[in-house]
Amino acid sequence: MNGQSLNHIQTLAIVGVGLIGGSLAMALKQAGAVGRVIGVGRSRVNLDTALSLGAIDEIQSDLQRAVGHADVIVLATPVNTIAELFATIAPAMNDNKIVTDVGSVKRGIVEQAKRALGNRFNRFVAGHPVAGKEKSGIAAATGDLFENHKVILTPTEETDAEACLTIKKMWQITGAEVKSMTVSEHDRILSITSHLPHVLAYVMMDFLSTSPESERCYEMAAGGFYDFTRTASSDPEMWRDISMMNKHHLLEHIEKFKKQLDNVATMIDAGEEKAIEDLYASAKHARALVTEKRKFK
Amino acid sequence: MNGQSLNHIQTLAIVGVGLIGGSLAMALKQAGAVGRVIGVGRSRVNLDTALSLGAIDEIQSDLQRAVGHADVIVLATPVNTIAELFATIAPAMNDNKIVTDVGSVKRGIVEQAKRALGNRFNRFVAGHPVAGKEKSGIAAATGDLFENHKVILTPTEETDAEACLTIKKMWQITGAEVKSMTVSEHDRILSITSHLPHVLAYVMMDFLSTSPESERCYEMAAGGFYDFTRTASSDPEMWRDISMMNKHHLLEHIEKFKKQLDNVATMIDAGEEKAIEDLYASAKHARALVTEKRKFK
Repeated sequence: MNGQSLNHIQTLAIVGVGLIGGSLAMALKQAGAVGRVIGVGRSRVNLDTALSLGAIDEIQSDLQRAVGHADVIVLATPVNTIAELFATIAPAMNDNKIVTDVGSVKRGIVEQAKRALGNRFNRFVAGHPVAGKEKSGIAAATGDLFENHKVILTPTEETDAEACLTIKKMWQITGAEVKSMTVSEHDRILSITSHLPHVLAYVMMDFLSTSPESERCYEMAAGGFYDFTRTASSDPEMWRDISMMNKHHLLEHIEKFKKQLDNVATMIDAGEEKAIEDLYASAKHARALVTEKRKFK
Repeated sequence: MNGQSLNHIQTLAIVGVGLIGGSLAMALKQAGAVGRVIGVGRSRVNLDTALSLGAIDEIQSDLQRAVGHADVIVLATPVNTIAELFATIAPAMNDNKIVTDVGSVKRGIVEQAKRALGNRFNRFVAGHPVAGKEKSGIAAATGDLFENHKVILTPTEETDAEACLTIKKMWQITGAEVKSMTVSEHDRILSITSHLPHVLAYVMMDFLSTSPESERCYEMAAGGFYDFTRTASSDPEMWRDISMMNKHHLLEHIEKFKKQLDNVATMIDAGEEKAIEDLYASAKHARALVTEKRKFK
């Protein structure tokens, strides 16, 4: 691998230098784990900002050319645009280059990579850093964004083991804990832990704002409500795309959630106090397990 | 009023010296706004702790005797036990005493107060400090618990105006902002801003913990999920009681929430991207209004 060890990337191309791509570049530079970073994107203003912030070393508007120069290519554009990049990069790929991505939903991206990359599909390591902020864009990027966060890789049977290890080490250098799972596990699990709660928070805010007494509701919203709806401050376009791309699992889980909500409503209606308390207590216990996991990560 | 000005309470009785009752006593003592605090409760250990923490000055196990000595009586026992106290205190009430409470649901409490207090019902000022913690009990009490929080009073047409003003001033001294609304407004609005989100957070944790992949879900739960489910760490007994006491509004709002969730599921299923984005964007906008209100409170 052209002068590249597992812990050092000679030339890195970041396609889409926003919060995630910019933060990754910053983290690797701060660790001295990368030689040169090429920033690729459509917005010149954005790339100039990335350059002035020191996230990237040079700007390249031609994606194929950037891939030609790079050892590792990170696709960090909005999740619904990642899949369409593979056709463009395919001709510039070779057996020494690795391409990875940061999309929050994996199936569509992996399927398109397989179609477009053909016999170079083994050089694609699908990834998802489970980190983010309510703010997006290069201005919000920081070198410590991934510290103590999870990054999920979803290699397939065809993925090159060494390529996978290189991407794993890359993320470990940023302070992240790297986990592997299958594409379908990823999309199913994230739909429970992330996509469903986002939709519920959006619906809760929609519920409140369309209530006849919304003004008083705004006024009375306390700390619990505020935390509950934090994810409703996330980027609407991004979450529209995630909702669409993971619709199979999301719709299944919305349906299941409604059934469990119905179940509680039935208990309340019937005055089954013991059953209500048991359910709340077991939920509280489960939340304590989540807290515990966070402490030791 | 026996040596009592609007801003100074000579003798205060706190019935149920837990997080809320204890914190109120501490706040008033720190402000020099109360002469003597009598703590009433069933648990001697708890009252001894309150005494040693300086929240109360003396212990009284006989509720009627405590009411006999007090100018202002605060009922701060668990929400489902408040209503039953009125019958006991009724014989000790007179036109110089004021009784108030801190229950999270108002209808049942106000109705029982009216029945039990008879022609002293004008001396009852129903109240609800919209403050709390995941931890409960006197050990978690602090004098600043109510600072920058809302306290809602729900006086009726019969409530004595001066009594209402005394309770309003009492809460203002703790640093709270006091709002008035009708009993039914209170129960309706709090069911949206507090009771429904609590139930949804409990159901979300129940959903995750009963999933076949719960172990992996626990592992992948990130910051968004953690905030979303914070209220699921609240006391199960307390929320069982709130769910039951406000069941009329809560069930109505669960039904409406399910419809709005269905509406989004239909959009996702039909691929109505514009409609999804518009709904998420308007939810994000509504959340920004909540944030703004918090800044200026």
